[in-house]
Parts: sequence; C-alpha cells; structure tokens
Amino acid sequence: MRQKLSIVTLGVSDLNRSRNFYQNGLGWAPSSASQDSIIFFDLGGVGLALFPVDELAKDAAVSSERAGFPGITLAHNVKSAEEVDRVIQKAEQAGAKITKKAQKVFWGGYSGYFADPDGYLWEVAWNPFIEFDEKDALIFP
Amino acid sequence: MRQKLSIVTLGVSDLNRSRNFYQNGLGWAPSSASQDSIIFFDLGGVGLALFPVDELAKDAAVSSERAGFPGITLAHNVKSAEEVDRVIQKAEQAGAKITKKAQKVFWGGYSGYFADPDGYLWEVAWNPFIEFDEKDALIFP
Repeated sequence: MRQKLSIVTLGVSDLNRSRNFYQNGLGWAPSSASQDSIIFFDLGGVGLALFPVDELAKDAAVSSERAGFPGITLAHNVKSAEEVDRVIQKAEQAGAKITKKAQKVFWGGYSGYFADPDGYLWEVAWNPFIEFDEKDALIFP
Repeated sequence: MRQKLSIVTLGVSDLNRSRNFYQNGLGWAPSSASQDSIIFFDLGGVGLALFPVDELAKDAAVSSERAGFPGITLAHNVKSAEEVDRVIQKAEQAGAKITKKAQKVFWGGYSGYFADPDGYLWEVAWNPFIEFDEKDALIFP
C-alpha cells in the first residue's frame, strides 16, 4: 500500500452551512469537481471533501450514529505565532468555536484549536522545529 | 487562511497496536520525527500522526468521550480496480475489519472500506475520472 493520503471527508449535518463556513468564512475556493451533493477543496495535493454525514456512513457501510469527540483532528501549520493568532481570529469571525485559545504549548510551539460547524477540530499551529517545502507542505524528516 | 492541510491526527487507544498496524501491517515507514509518545508517517506532503486519544482530546481542550462513527473518513486513491482489491486484501491480512467489500460504486468507480484498530475508516478507491501528478497526488480541477 503506497504511503499516501488522497482525500479527507468530513461528514456534515448541513452541507450549505459547512460550505459557507469553509468557502466564505475561511476564504477557501472549492474545486470545480464539486457537485450539489459533495464539495471538494484542494488543500495542496490532498483533498478536503464535505459530504452529508448520513450518506458518508452509508457509503462506508457503517452506522451514522456518532457522539462526542470524533477522535480525529486536522492540523493547519503556519510559519509564525502571529499567523496562528490571525488564523484563529479569522476562524472565530467565521463562526467557529475556539476550543483552545492560541497559546505556548509543551512541545515548544504555539497553537490553538477551533471547531467547525459540526465540531470537527482544526489545530492551527506554529512549530519552530519544522520546515516547509516550496509548496508550503511540511517536510517530514 | 491558506488552503492547506498539514497533519491528520488519529487519537488511538493503544499506540503500539496502531503503530504495528500501519508500520508492519500496511508497510508504512514512520518518520524519524516520531517519538515514544507520537508516531508520524509522511503521506506525501501531509502527515498522519498517531497519538493517544485521551491526550489528543486534552490537547484540543475537549472531552475525550466518543461513540460510534467518527464522522470523518480518509481516502487512499489508487490507479486501478485491481489495485483496490490488492490493498483491501493487504489491510485485511493486517487485521483490519472490512466494512464494505470492494465493489463498483454509483459514481462510476470501484472502492471498498476498511476500519483500522480504532475503527477509523479508510476508503480505498479507483476513480476513472481523476488524474494523478508525478508525485501520485490527486489533481483537483
């Protein structure tokens, strides 16, 4: 199995609300591959898809019942502590709930978390020990 | 906010079990950035991290209680229906539960789903309408 992630799909309870949050709130441009029933964003070689949660569970042939912590978080790494503050502020203005205010963290960086309309958690982080390539992808040693 | 995903973190209940599944079961090489408390895999510019679920919830300042469907799925796109079959078989041999056998799907492709040791769902998919770049990343129109 190649070591590759292609798409992360968020099962959402209101597709229009979620599209509005990511497109108008965070300012992301949907891919033209988007349809009425599914929205795609190109997050730099990996896709983010928004798809109704009931249909997603059905597609995976599992029950759609869910409660509490999804168990999965998404991280958006930036290049300075100031950029963390700006992004967290932008997300809050877009209606996100800030679950953890941006702060210095034990591993030596600076980060905060916001929850999207369905409670999916994004960490916005500056890690002084990590480098980016020319396409802003993290370089993993 | 730049349109970028840096890391997907799976909150796992047994770090050794999960590391074994991804490293020895699926055959993925951990990044040397991995530590005793967190394992990283470079999935092509985006990282997959394995981290204890209680600590992940604490880091995000949310309750770690979770039940049922995570609401998020991960997709691994491949280049043929046969490759879908091979990857699903490999995952099953690694101890994954196959929630949906590989099959033709309504959108014109071929896919199946497996669940990792914590129930996190991976779709293995061949989509005849999608192209890859030279680094095997999907090209989003």
